[in-house]
Amino acid sequence: MRYHKIPDETVRRLPLYWRVLHSLSAKDQVHMSSKTLADIVHVNPWQVRKDLSYFGTLGTPGVGYDVKKLLKEIGNILRLNGTQKAVLVGVGNLGAALLKYPGFESYGFDIIAAFDKHPRKIGKTINNVIVKDVSQLNDLKGRDIYIGIIAVSATSAQDIAGKLIDVGICGILNFAPVYLTVPKKVTIRNIDIALDLARLPYYMPAKLVGKAI
Amino acid sequence: MRYHKIPDETVRRLPLYWRVLHSLSAKDQVHMSSKTLADIVHVNPWQVRKDLSYFGTLGTPGVGYDVKKLLKEIGNILRLNGTQKAVLVGVGNLGAALLKYPGFESYGFDIIAAFDKHPRKIGKTINNVIVKDVSQLNDLKGRDIYIGIIAVSATSAQDIAGKLIDVGICGILNFAPVYLTVPKKVTIRNIDIALDLARLPYYMPAKLVGKAI
Repeated sequence: MRYHKIPDETVRRLPLYWRVLHSLSAKDQVHMSSKTLADIVHVNPWQVRKDLSYFGTLGTPGVGYDVKKLLKEIGNILRLNGTQKAVLVGVGNLGAALLKYPGFESYGFDIIAAFDKHPRKIGKTINNVIVKDVSQLNDLKGRDIYIGIIAVSATSAQDIAGKLIDVGICGILNFAPVYLTVPKKVTIRNIDIALDLARLPYYMPAKLVGKAI
Repeated sequence: MRYHKIPDETVRRLPLYWRVLHSLSAKDQVHMSSKTLADIVHVNPWQVRKDLSYFGTLGTPGVGYDVKKLLKEIGNILRLNGTQKAVLVGVGNLGAALLKYPGFESYGFDIIAAFDKHPRKIGKTINNVIVKDVSQLNDLKGRDIYIGIIAVSATSAQDIAGKLIDVGICGILNFAPVYLTVPKKVTIRNIDIALDLARLPYYMPAKLVGKAI
């Protein structure tokens, strides 16, 4: 089931709510107010109530929301219930760190395969994942893996994106600092670490940064 | 000099332009059209011309923009000319990868110090940076360092942010998956890797993701 009327801004916040609910559920908390949720993720309580109302979930006045029910509901919308298999290409410094990144598991993601082109990387085991030769990407076909993480260089990223799409990947998290052209059916999110850092100095007090240059 | 009238959306794109100009300048290219720039960063040529017009830079019809002049101008606005010193706190897998990340250098950033609380990390040298005890953060005072990168756990991040701000940091790139409260004078950008991955499945074809769950 798709919820076509949920605005992108709400979809952007839903995983934040999901993560809070997940941790409250693990602590066996039964109910939660919109204010509690709002305080933790730093939005207004009315925003939380509006976001949740898009899929018909209303809290009970004086009681709040049912934690487990809401967790399951948001998980269904975001498709975070159950485990999502993912693959990673590019096991350099960043790629290796991503293979060990504990945050993915908290959303139910499991990186089950990793690929690199460098012979000295191939065959290594990192966090229980054996690094394979990138030429073996084709073996992923038909294995119900739809999420790919690209951590190769900017010059290789477009080629790798094409290969991932060829084996059925339709969601890509791209760390290469380059714009990737993908078919419309493929969703891509870019994390350009240096670019985000480069956006900071403009907003910092001029007298300080002037000194640093 | 601040350019108060430049919209955030333009500031968001300027580092992309800067990076392209930097690489063209390194190849001794003298002129560049708005179309060339637009094609590389995947926006419309009119958007490029509009963005650049905010600070009074106009191309010459039939010739384009002067690469070196424009590079310097954007660099001055973004304060990317010269080297910007930065510090990193949290030398776990991700922090260590960030210390080795080549992308920062391309914008003139230099991570000159790193800190961790774990004895087995302290004293290690990673990419020519010696990891120091987080208790030594105070030594940064008065050293003209204004940019901090936080790669500690979610539970420690707020405490570390406070300590960084105490020693004069006013621009923070935060990788901890938590909302940090900072004074208004401090600019913060968050990179929440798992959160970005968690936003993908919603947009992927339902029949595929349904199978994966």
